[in-house]
Amino acid sequence: MPSTAAPAALRTVTRRATRGDAYGYAEVVTFPVVGMVGGGQLARMTHEAGIPLGIRFRLLSGTPQDSAALAVRDVVVGDHNDLATLRDFARGCDVITFDHEHVPTEHLRALEADGIPVRPGPDALVHAQDKGVMRARLDSLGVGCPRHRIVRDPADVAAFAAEVADADGAGADGAAQDAGFPVPVVLKTVRGGYDGKGVWVVRTAAEAAVPFKAGVPVLAEEKVDFARELAACVVRSPHGQAVAYPVVESVQVGGVCDTVIAPAPGLPDDEAVQAQEMALRIAQELGVVGHMAVELFETPDGRVLVNELAMRPHNSGHWTQDGAVTSQFANHLRAVLDLPLGDPRPRARWTVMANVLGGDYPDMYSAYRHCMARDPQLKIHMYGKDVKPGRKVGHVNTYGDDLADVRERAAHAAGYLRGTITE
Amino acid sequence: MPSTAAPAALRTVTRRATRGDAYGYAEVVTFPVVGMVGGGQLARMTHEAGIPLGIRFRLLSGTPQDSAALAVRDVVVGDHNDLATLRDFARGCDVITFDHEHVPTEHLRALEADGIPVRPGPDALVHAQDKGVMRARLDSLGVGCPRHRIVRDPADVAAFAAEVADADGAGADGAAQDAGFPVPVVLKTVRGGYDGKGVWVVRTAAEAAVPFKAGVPVLAEEKVDFARELAACVVRSPHGQAVAYPVVESVQVGGVCDTVIAPAPGLPDDEAVQAQEMALRIAQELGVVGHMAVELFETPDGRVLVNELAMRPHNSGHWTQDGAVTSQFANHLRAVLDLPLGDPRPRARWTVMANVLGGDYPDMYSAYRHCMARDPQLKIHMYGKDVKPGRKVGHVNTYGDDLADVRERAAHAAGYLRGTITE
Ligand SMILES: Nc1ncnc2c1ncn2[C@@H]1O[C@H](COP(=O)(O)OP(=O)(O)O)[C@@H](O)[C@H]1O
Ligand SMILES: Nc1ncnc2c1ncn2[C@@H]1O[C@H](COP(=O)(O)OP(=O)(O)O)[C@@H](O)[C@H]1O
Ligand SMILES: [Mg+2]
Ligand SMILES: [Mg+2]
Repeated sequence: MPSTAAPAALRTVTRRATRGDAYGYAEVVTFPVVGMVGGGQLARMTHEAGIPLGIRFRLLSGTPQDSAALAVRDVVVGDHNDLATLRDFARGCDVITFDHEHVPTEHLRALEADGIPVRPGPDALVHAQDKGVMRARLDSLGVGCPRHRIVRDPADVAAFAAEVADADGAGADGAAQDAGFPVPVVLKTVRGGYDGKGVWVVRTAAEAAVPFKAGVPVLAEEKVDFARELAACVVRSPHGQAVAYPVVESVQVGGVCDTVIAPAPGLPDDEAVQAQEMALRIAQELGVVGHMAVELFETPDGRVLVNELAMRPHNSGHWTQDGAVTSQFANHLRAVLDLPLGDPRPRARWTVMANVLGGDYPDMYSAYRHCMARDPQLKIHMYGKDVKPGRKVGHVNTYGDDLADVRERAAHAAGYLRGTITE
Repeated sequence: MPSTAAPAALRTVTRRATRGDAYGYAEVVTFPVVGMVGGGQLARMTHEAGIPLGIRFRLLSGTPQDSAALAVRDVVVGDHNDLATLRDFARGCDVITFDHEHVPTEHLRALEADGIPVRPGPDALVHAQDKGVMRARLDSLGVGCPRHRIVRDPADVAAFAAEVADADGAGADGAAQDAGFPVPVVLKTVRGGYDGKGVWVVRTAAEAAVPFKAGVPVLAEEKVDFARELAACVVRSPHGQAVAYPVVESVQVGGVCDTVIAPAPGLPDDEAVQAQEMALRIAQELGVVGHMAVELFETPDGRVLVNELAMRPHNSGHWTQDGAVTSQFANHLRAVLDLPLGDPRPRARWTVMANVLGGDYPDMYSAYRHCMARDPQLKIHMYGKDVKPGRKVGHVNTYGDDLADVRERAAHAAGYLRGTITE
């Protein structure tokens, strides 16, 4: 119960610095309110991480039934595309951060002009919102990327394919390919994609026509023949403190993250350190605040190329909830509040995360019970979402000394929950 | 967003088993709603543990500003002593459990009669509510306890003291003690106490008069000259699965838990196993469901005597949040839902919990920032409560291989947050 003796402005959990003259203190700085835009699972898990931190968490959610909205006390239901809604929401907050990249850049600038700290700020966030802006900036920093170009029509794509083939010495071969491009090209809408939506691999002018239909600028990239995908995750605070998590391997199935292995098996130390340093450098150059995932392609000859940037908690960091001293969610909150960051080091030799996708059966509760019985060490993270085929509805984490065992346990649980393993 | 195509009864997150004829399934068992009575920090941390489990958490809180109420979506504000309020609250829940022991036993029986699962049930819970009932039952089970008796007045206490002294052969010595009792006696109100409130050590008839003033029955106990206090925590589910956490040492200062060390340093294996077996046996005999802490006295000659029982998450189990594979909070939820229990084993060689008590300074935010900077591995758990001198407002957990270091880090952070260490 609130103290009746203390003046209201001195209650521990109030926002904003206040004067505490009654006690003779010059200034009392109190526990802040973090506002997160977006009601998905990332916000849900950020709230979970914020409870022990003692901060207040405020949510702007599209509906009252969104994943995070089911678990948070202070929920504003509204549209993140509407500036008036955002302003109303921000009034109760000490800082604004994000569950997704979809808030229009100009709205973020308006909030900043209102004096609300927006973290990451619009100048950083735009590199996670717009793949064209991101590529241009990484080029200027000399960071290795797939060859790329903004394209306007299928003819542009064909020209780009020819150039790539030329540079790779693959021209002759490709020209024989049945009036198709000499090499396949990856096309991406620069904004709005996720989980592979907004990404196409095209081999002909006809196929290349599809992405342009959305009316969004399109980025063409060489199709990298990568050995595997990695992710380097870092967290940076406004005053410049930064930490790097171990580099992980991220296994995608059908454009969706399926499994993450921490640390990436067999990755040479110097390659790992290079990837971490690169991620830290990008965070600094772009002025990132909070968690950033740098999605990477590892080439067969051991180089890394940047695929894309995400400036928020990210699927490739879910393993940290059970596998690191400080989770990505806790560190994201600490960063946006400019608090000292927590130790990012792993707690186990190996940690594996496997996403739980919805299957054909709308209920998971019996499968969930079975998984708990089979593996008492399993860490299940459900998002409270309706099951729809292919939708991310949860994930599991496993950890231990034996990678094969740790992988098997994660894959089994995720498969069983989805219904693809019945045992 | 909720699917508009699926009938409402089939949404994953709804309560109760429902028929799903539209999909042709015989029955869909869905994620349940757990109702917790009491808005304190134990409910707050249980909610935190329930988020990844995907369950819905409903809270009955005395005020909208209670520790848990600040973090939970679904809060009913009301009085747990009022049966109509409890009934209203329970209507939305699949099971009812507790943050404290203060709900009247007859109300719990009424809820059970309404068909609501109450876990732990009233027949078990009464042993944590009433120290007299608890002592009588442990006697009948042959479990070692301090000598004790229900007393009606100071004369009764004097007679009890004489008997204890006699049995200990301390009579002659004590009789010389200035018209006082030959040995000190511990008096406890049988109901309503916590954190040492409701416990007195008395040496004279005048002192012994005080506890009777509350009008509650009083239990007299010999004052055990213990070497230290231990706690054996177990979790049991309705179908009888049970797990035991490592036995911990609990250091009390002024009747309040100050530090918990897991596992209890230097405790011989056979003594630890005996204590665990005793706790498991008590849980079974009493039909406990959920987490139970058995508070113990270790005598100088290596026996253990039961001090009291708590049937809910307990301060001596807070270390499990960061130090065990499955926390007491997650396992309490799994137990009350009759889900398979999680692994109780420790993740680190040593884990230390230190309570953060309020100091004279009403704000903790700057101290909190300092502690994070000093120790990036520190795990802080704040309860969102107003600071009042001596009030439990949070705790910290530390872990590692070197006990002295782990203890120092926990003690430093707790002392710094309280303001007793300024460095
Ligand atoms: N240039 C590329 N070469 C090869 N594969 C690619 C390329 N770009 C994307 N991909 C594949 O498509 C996936 C999704 O692409 P990405 O740009 O990360 O889109 P999203 O924003 O949907 O995550 C990547 O994880 C990778 O598997
Ligand atoms: N019989 C006893 N002998 C010695 N110390 C005792 C005895 N009973 C209680 N104490 C001390 O008082 C503390 C609080 O007593 P307890 O019965 O656990 O009350 P509470 O319900 O407030 O926790 C114990 O942790 C112990 O330190
Ligand atoms: Mg991607
Ligand atoms: Mg006690």
